[in-house]
Formats: sequence, structure tokens, C-alpha cells
Amino acid sequence: MIGRLNHVAIAVPDLEAASEQYRTALGAKVNPPQDEPDHGVTVVFIELPNTKIELLYPLGDNSPILGFLEKNPSGGIHHVCYEVDDILAARDQLKANGLRVLGNGEPKIGAHGKPVLFLHPKDMNGTLVELEQV
Amino acid sequence: MIGRLNHVAIAVPDLEAASEQYRTALGAKVNPPQDEPDHGVTVVFIELPNTKIELLYPLGDNSPILGFLEKNPSGGIHHVCYEVDDILAARDQLKANGLRVLGNGEPKIGAHGKPVLFLHPKDMNGTLVELEQV
Repeated sequence: MIGRLNHVAIAVPDLEAASEQYRTALGAKVNPPQDEPDHGVTVVFIELPNTKIELLYPLGDNSPILGFLEKNPSGGIHHVCYEVDDILAARDQLKANGLRVLGNGEPKIGAHGKPVLFLHPKDMNGTLVELEQV
Repeated sequence: MIGRLNHVAIAVPDLEAASEQYRTALGAKVNPPQDEPDHGVTVVFIELPNTKIELLYPLGDNSPILGFLEKNPSGGIHHVCYEVDDILAARDQLKANGLRVLGNGEPKIGAHGKPVLFLHPKDMNGTLVELEQV
């Protein structure tokens, strides 16, 4: 069912410094920051040849990243995102296997403008997993 | 400098259950476990179309994964691995940019039989980063 790894998201305490580090020290292709007010994050995409790294920084007072950075002041890997062809079929298969979907169980429109769901980290080896329909 | 994302490593408290979950609930291609005694881990590779997920489970009493699982009993994302063409050139460029290399700074032979280095998570947004020469 799951397809490509769409991205790995890393929450960072200083978006400018992290972007510059990936650009200069690691020599990666780093895109300009994009504000995603609906998701409470500012995002920088780092393009690798086979996938993306998504640097996340809080935007606004209700950002879902604020609590994560309080617990992890240096930053840390926040989630991985797997692609699926049909997010409703994926959800139903996962629920049938006892996995919990976060929120009300209905897909939302994610940062890439496509339907996404998140799975409960406790059900997924402590890993927050996003599914994105592509 | 960095190339492909070679893998995302996830430490898991139950390798059999995690493998079965990725195989059945997520419908991924899951390989049989491999013991890596030199690295203190048993590894299961999950093949995605563009990269790999590496499930890690402690092997032996000195496994580097034991402490991680004590802190994160449900498991969690342990590291990401970026490919480089020349690991010594990569190391020197990273050190010149102020990043610390773990251990004695010399590459070791990693789980795939290729030279690897790890960067200090505090220098990399709380993320343990492995570099692998391919």
C-alpha cells in the first residue's frame, strides 16, 4: 500500500541557520521558506535526488511545532510521510489493522495541497507517520 | 555534497511486530531480519520505491539502541542517512563548517559494508545524521 517516502520532516529552532547549514555545510539544494498559516508552520524544502527533507519552524501561537520544540530544544525529526494512491482506502485498511488515525479520521489538505492523514505515534513505534495521497 | 537519502532508521521495541505491521497494515516490502553483531543491532530493511526504512532492534548487551529504547520505550526515529561520494572529503568539509563527527573522526564500516560517519545531533537540529559513502 505505501509508496514512496515523500519527505522526512525535521523541526528546527532556527530556520535560517538550519537552511544555511544544509546549503553550505551539506551542499544541498535548499528552497526559500514558505509560510503555511493553515498548518502553523514555516517550511523549507531541501531537495535530495530521491526525496525531500522538510524543515519545520513554528508559525503563530498555536503551531503544532511549539510543543515539540519545547520538549526538544535542539530540534529533532518530527515525522515521516509515506505516499499512498487512495487515502480513504489506506485509512480503512489501517483502521482494520487496529491503527489509530489522529483527529476526526477525515483527511485534511496538507502543506502540498493534497489530502493527508496522521497515524498515532504510539501505534507506529513512536513514529509520527503522515500519509499523503499523490 | 549530500546525495540520496539512503535510509531512515527507526528503533523498535518489538522487531517481529513492527515487521508484521509494515508488511500487513502498510503493505510494504519487508525483508527478513539480519543480525549485525559488529553494530549491536538486528536490522529489518523495508524497501520503498525511492529509499529504505531500517528497523533497528538491540543485539547484545552493548547495543547502541538499548539506551535509545530506554528513553523511548515505544521506539522512535533514530537517524537519517545521507549518501556521499567521498566520505573523507565530506568529513573535512563538515568539520570546516564547525560540525562535530562522532567517535575518533575516522569512518567505520557500516551495516551495508561501506564507510560511514555520524554527525553530532546537537550540531544538526537534534538529528543524528549518518553519512555513507556509496
